[in-house]
Amino acid sequence: MILSGRVVTISRTRIHLGLNALKDLRKLLASHDYRASRVIILTDTNTAKHCLPRLVSICPELDSASMFEIDPGEASKSLAAAEKIWIELLLARADRQSVLINLGGGVVSDLGGFVAAGYKRGIRYINVPTSLMGMADASIGGKTGVNLGQLKNQAGFFYLPFAVFIDTAFLKTLSEAHLRSGFAEIMKSALIGDPVLWRRILKHGAEAILAADTSEKLWQDLVFKTVTFKNKIACQDFTEKKLRKILNFGHTIGHALESLTLGLENRALLHGDAVALGMIAETRLSQMKTGLSETEAEVIASFLQSAWAAQVLMLKDMIVRGDISIERISNMLFNDKKNKDGRIHFTLLKEIGKPALNIQSRPDEIAVSLKRLFESS
Amino acid sequence: MILSGRVVTISRTRIHLGLNALKDLRKLLASHDYRASRVIILTDTNTAKHCLPRLVSICPELDSASMFEIDPGEASKSLAAAEKIWIELLLARADRQSVLINLGGGVVSDLGGFVAAGYKRGIRYINVPTSLMGMADASIGGKTGVNLGQLKNQAGFFYLPFAVFIDTAFLKTLSEAHLRSGFAEIMKSALIGDPVLWRRILKHGAEAILAADTSEKLWQDLVFKTVTFKNKIACQDFTEKKLRKILNFGHTIGHALESLTLGLENRALLHGDAVALGMIAETRLSQMKTGLSETEAEVIASFLQSAWAAQVLMLKDMIVRGDISIERISNMLFNDKKNKDGRIHFTLLKEIGKPALNIQSRPDEIAVSLKRLFESS
Repeated sequence: MILSGRVVTISRTRIHLGLNALKDLRKLLASHDYRASRVIILTDTNTAKHCLPRLVSICPELDSASMFEIDPGEASKSLAAAEKIWIELLLARADRQSVLINLGGGVVSDLGGFVAAGYKRGIRYINVPTSLMGMADASIGGKTGVNLGQLKNQAGFFYLPFAVFIDTAFLKTLSEAHLRSGFAEIMKSALIGDPVLWRRILKHGAEAILAADTSEKLWQDLVFKTVTFKNKIACQDFTEKKLRKILNFGHTIGHALESLTLGLENRALLHGDAVALGMIAETRLSQMKTGLSETEAEVIASFLQSAWAAQVLMLKDMIVRGDISIERISNMLFNDKKNKDGRIHFTLLKEIGKPALNIQSRPDEIAVSLKRLFESS
Repeated sequence: MILSGRVVTISRTRIHLGLNALKDLRKLLASHDYRASRVIILTDTNTAKHCLPRLVSICPELDSASMFEIDPGEASKSLAAAEKIWIELLLARADRQSVLINLGGGVVSDLGGFVAAGYKRGIRYINVPTSLMGMADASIGGKTGVNLGQLKNQAGFFYLPFAVFIDTAFLKTLSEAHLRSGFAEIMKSALIGDPVLWRRILKHGAEAILAADTSEKLWQDLVFKTVTFKNKIACQDFTEKKLRKILNFGHTIGHALESLTLGLENRALLHGDAVALGMIAETRLSQMKTGLSETEAEVIASFLQSAWAAQVLMLKDMIVRGDISIERISNMLFNDKKNKDGRIHFTLLKEIGKPALNIQSRPDEIAVSLKRLFESS
């Protein structure tokens, strides 16, 4: 399977994946039709150090671009950060024909997309994801946003990137922890839409996939499958009226866990880790609510509980210490964006590859599913 | 001409104008299809006092809606105000099926539209304009935004209201100063697109139109002509790639004047007053750049200079005192959203009813046009 130079075009976003992705970016910027009056690159301090050199070596014209740098981590996904960049853009006299390139993970592309959507009522932006989370999920589909306090993505817009360039060579810059976090979205994609991919992952095993010597070809393949699936869904239901909600499996409880640990020093869960824990609980909820078989539920939960054993333990520890509680997690769920009429709606599984939308659950059912998270640990 | 109950539907925005407008709003909110999980009303302290009672008397169900109140004036159109409302909405557990009703002038609908666009990636909003500026301009067309520091509307989105309900009875709550400000947008509409309306306004005279005893029927008629014209243009070119720019006549210099006086206590120009002064200068620029005849330019400029005589004098006084200068106005123009490649682009007039787009002007030409503002005063 040759993935280099693969281009997927659905709706208005062109997605370039493979060995030639950054060369394609260079071509786009040079093309007469594109006409960027000014290029601005948004990075965090990590990607400025580890990824920008590669980008500029392949696209040397970008050496003269304006550079904005944010601190890594969720705390940068704030309205204050967006305002700061907007004011910098004004000072740099960036006009409506400017283009913002987001070089980084989900935080950079979520914030950068939000900034691009709102600057002078919208400029173009390009995502160059550098994390697995960015490549497999955050850079695709045009969900932009910032956090309000500890509540994730509560202010934001649906605003598509002009193009996305995915160069899996950047994965070499990632720690295993961040690889694992991004891997959760690949897992989710397999569970809701791709039983073949799911069996392949099972066969490989999580530790083998996350090992340092995993080939770029395997990553390209896993990312390609996840990205094309997500892009297809996002384009069919851009503003998440219905179908797109299937992508929220694991995210309802996941977001609550992420929000609650956001303020806890050194123990904040990475987005993907929170989603993985969310998927375990929502798999248990699926058994109760949508008839997911015990066999499938056991296989899913035990795979996730083993791959995210450290995070399960950490969460258990936080509950034992009283830093968070099942009740507070449950309360936090009421702020989920998918809520309707004050009730909590989940995306659950009927079986692997068959999601079920808008499933209401009672607080006691949610509590049971959360408690089962810690069963085998 | 019967205007009561008139409904214009173009694109996705329904615009109701006339005696039955607020009754139509009540019907919408009661309709099964609309399904608002929660209704939130945004007002400023003036409209809460003077307009909310009328709204609630016609739509008694709104008595139980959540109410948010902002201070009147441009200073409320800030990111900080938007954040505050977003957090209030979260605390009130407003979900994606909530609806925000903006009851007020341009500040309320610009800010409220921005809040609705960004809350959980977008909820529906309804504009009920109470000022002439709101009715004739700000409530229509889906331009939402907040100011960044003293720079107007630099953060914002194109996001259409679900519906607009225009009840000209609210005009009775307005001071003559605010009527005059809104009247500037009606003037603009006539100048760029409706020579018949322009001749009618000339015949009436500004002072007669702005007089307290002007019939609601005349206002309805003027507002109807302006609104249908703007809505048509906005729907043809929603994101202002080309055609919609014609609506910017007077606004390039107008925005600069408004921004520069924003921080000056008691002397901040109202939006429409700034646009009126902008139209005088840009009429002069039209003579230089797009061949507007001297005869037409004189008629336009003298009408505006007479109707906005006090504002022309005030601006002259600020320049004499050194509070602002022609040079600072010129510099401010470089931050206009319509700029391209660092050059200043104007919408000018070739003749009355025939606008010209993207006209570049040199700083010296702009300076001449600004100086001619004070010629006859």
